[in-house]
Amino acid sequence: MRNLVVLFILFTFSLQAQESDSVIIRKFFNEELTKGKSYGLLDHLANNIGGRLSGSPQAAQAVDWGKRTMDFLGFDKVWLQEVMVPHWVRGDKEQAKIISSKEKTEVRICALGNSIGTGSKGITANVIEVKSFKELEILGKKKIEGKIVFFNRALDPTNIGTGSAYGGAVDQRGSGAVEAAKYGAIGVVVRSMTLTMDDHPHTGGTWYKDSITKIPACAISTIGATKLSESIKLDPETKFYFKQTCEMLPDEKSYNIIGEIRGSQYPEEIIVVGGHLDCWDICDGASDDGTGIVQSIEALRLFKVLGIRPKRTIRAVLYMNEENGARGGEKYAEVAATLHENHIAAIESDGGGFTPRSFGVDNENAIAKMQPWVELLKQYGIMEIKKGWGGVDIGPLKKSGAVMIGYTCDSQRYFDYHHSEIDTFDKVNKRELELGTSCIASLLWLISEYGL
Amino acid sequence: MRNLVVLFILFTFSLQAQESDSVIIRKFFNEELTKGKSYGLLDHLANNIGGRLSGSPQAAQAVDWGKRTMDFLGFDKVWLQEVMVPHWVRGDKEQAKIISSKEKTEVRICALGNSIGTGSKGITANVIEVKSFKELEILGKKKIEGKIVFFNRALDPTNIGTGSAYGGAVDQRGSGAVEAAKYGAIGVVVRSMTLTMDDHPHTGGTWYKDSITKIPACAISTIGATKLSESIKLDPETKFYFKQTCEMLPDEKSYNIIGEIRGSQYPEEIIVVGGHLDCWDICDGASDDGTGIVQSIEALRLFKVLGIRPKRTIRAVLYMNEENGARGGEKYAEVAATLHENHIAAIESDGGGFTPRSFGVDNENAIAKMQPWVELLKQYGIMEIKKGWGGVDIGPLKKSGAVMIGYTCDSQRYFDYHHSEIDTFDKVNKRELELGTSCIASLLWLISEYGL
Repeated sequence: MRNLVVLFILFTFSLQAQESDSVIIRKFFNEELTKGKSYGLLDHLANNIGGRLSGSPQAAQAVDWGKRTMDFLGFDKVWLQEVMVPHWVRGDKEQAKIISSKEKTEVRICALGNSIGTGSKGITANVIEVKSFKELEILGKKKIEGKIVFFNRALDPTNIGTGSAYGGAVDQRGSGAVEAAKYGAIGVVVRSMTLTMDDHPHTGGTWYKDSITKIPACAISTIGATKLSESIKLDPETKFYFKQTCEMLPDEKSYNIIGEIRGSQYPEEIIVVGGHLDCWDICDGASDDGTGIVQSIEALRLFKVLGIRPKRTIRAVLYMNEENGARGGEKYAEVAATLHENHIAAIESDGGGFTPRSFGVDNENAIAKMQPWVELLKQYGIMEIKKGWGGVDIGPLKKSGAVMIGYTCDSQRYFDYHHSEIDTFDKVNKRELELGTSCIASLLWLISEYGL
Repeated sequence: MRNLVVLFILFTFSLQAQESDSVIIRKFFNEELTKGKSYGLLDHLANNIGGRLSGSPQAAQAVDWGKRTMDFLGFDKVWLQEVMVPHWVRGDKEQAKIISSKEKTEVRICALGNSIGTGSKGITANVIEVKSFKELEILGKKKIEGKIVFFNRALDPTNIGTGSAYGGAVDQRGSGAVEAAKYGAIGVVVRSMTLTMDDHPHTGGTWYKDSITKIPACAISTIGATKLSESIKLDPETKFYFKQTCEMLPDEKSYNIIGEIRGSQYPEEIIVVGGHLDCWDICDGASDDGTGIVQSIEALRLFKVLGIRPKRTIRAVLYMNEENGARGGEKYAEVAATLHENHIAAIESDGGGFTPRSFGVDNENAIAKMQPWVELLKQYGIMEIKKGWGGVDIGPLKKSGAVMIGYTCDSQRYFDYHHSEIDTFDKVNKRELELGTSCIASLLWLISEYGL
């Protein structure tokens, strides 16, 4: 009988908790969908500041804006965290041509981030098309030396999640230059990392190794890639010409920006929500990752404006340099370790501001604890809390024991825009963005109430 | 022991069935995501034919295209079903002004579908703003007579499903003219049925009653509505002027287009999938309902091209006249009843071509039977099969006993475009559309295999 009474009390308590959670969550959504600031903040970041690659004047403007914005919103504490970042510049507009025995065809390319330039005369050489590093190995130095390697493995459209499709092709962009240089290639051109057939080249980081000769690397639009491939089929002696004057300058001083609301009961337990403030120079970075930035700021603002005090400390972190170095994420984790800070969880939003679908979590115990929350969030679009990945910026915090959580929104459109000139403000839907913000605020609330 | 054996056999059978279903479903997705025709078909319908209101030359072109397309695809049988439809024409570009004591401000309006015109001089009168029919009753004839009634109840943004938000406001557009005329109003202007703040007026059907004086009705953009409301607050004597030369012409002959693949085992049991071929004249109707049309055709093409024979007959129906009369849906059900056809289910796609979320079903027993299918469809985005609504066109089939099923895709962007000049092809994402097509084909397969 006593057990039954205890059970009854527990049941009633849990029911009340659920009810009160659902009321709090509803408040987040009502506030955001009627008086939300996510869209207005994004408008400023994308349209007034624009492209903001690490080390650029626009990145410095974005830092200033992020700090002022969180100060203005009256968070308990707002500060800058210094971090040295790479400073890569694109130089002049890139040029490229397919040169077959029959004709010369201009095609649209852009230099890959971190790439060296070609020199002012550009480079011209025969092209060899491959779809994998294995192919390079089979072809060997004899067939590759002195040539431009064309990586043309497309993203697999039958992958339903576009992130998996991207993951299955992006090695070509990240390591293509190093792998091709091993066999004596003098340059690489990589098919753009998108599922669409269009004429926008998509940039993104490429990574050199000190021990391997650095060769210039560029991305070609998917239409251009198709043309180049066809040209090689018709004329195996097809040459490719490209010119890019990009270069890596000395590191620059920059900052992560951190704002927090102190927990009322366990202030030493910290929950981070973040995105990256830097973005590629050829777009305004609305979806990658302006949306993550404004969702992180706005999630905290919702607590503030609604007078909801979290039990644990919640922190918005605007990370610098995700795109071509990930130094901000490293720095944040390094400082946290030095200060012996206790991060219990970190949420990253870096998949665009599309309609909510799920949260991905890297820890099975946490997933089990979070399952009852799905029922609270389903009506808002979060259908699952399941095994998944956090993100690049929060990644370095993992070794501290923090649970890594990725906000997963609908992925179908993300790579259409990603790292290209069409990643612009007009591609973001106001309500979709706001729903994401509210889902993230709700998760912050639940973790701050119940821990993980 | 015998029971155990039976159970084991049943379990094995069910496992095999599931496996074979999952293989078939994967085939639909692989084919559609790599060689799908949905997007190309939509391109033609939206960009080459365009706006196609019932009775218009474009609607006739669309009928011709629909028939030729299904003939070309080699469905077992393709035929036209004659139906007389209303023929409303918009006339000249509408004009409107807010006239206060201080200034005249031009605003963007469009006539509501089925509305009468204002005469060539337009009408000018004092405006009275209301948010409900109840307010009209309270104000009464004395305050309304001779005026233009301005219905300004916004869609509720805190409704997560935009369809519910629309449902909570659309009475103003559908019945506003009739309700205002009861109190002697001489015209109505209705806030556009959208959640966005922009300058695109959204049209849509308005409905007269024979016993009530017909008065002209128009939609004003949400920006215009805000201006009008502010003007009335500053100057209660604000007048509104609008001119529209729309009119209803005699009924025209038109058609539903029907294509079918005969069932191999139960051909007399029919499963319909459909959308509506007509659309408003001011847009190309890509999302409303070009996407439903091409998904219906393409779902059948997937069976055909993959050589998958359904046990039950599957039928694509391109309904005519959903927007301003729903005569096509009525006609189809009427003929089905006359021929004693046995429709076991009907699926409607009329919510745009966005990412799949769920199927809505009107019948609890069918929902229970369909639950195991959710596990097969989850990886493709269908997270739920739950209580819901079929659609306007399939609605009249309900009395025959058919289960009504609505394909429910993400709803956040739909009403941004709906019935306005920005419902255009470029708003549709190829992959999102294709995922929807494949989900619908998968559901057709499951129903054709197992019945309901």
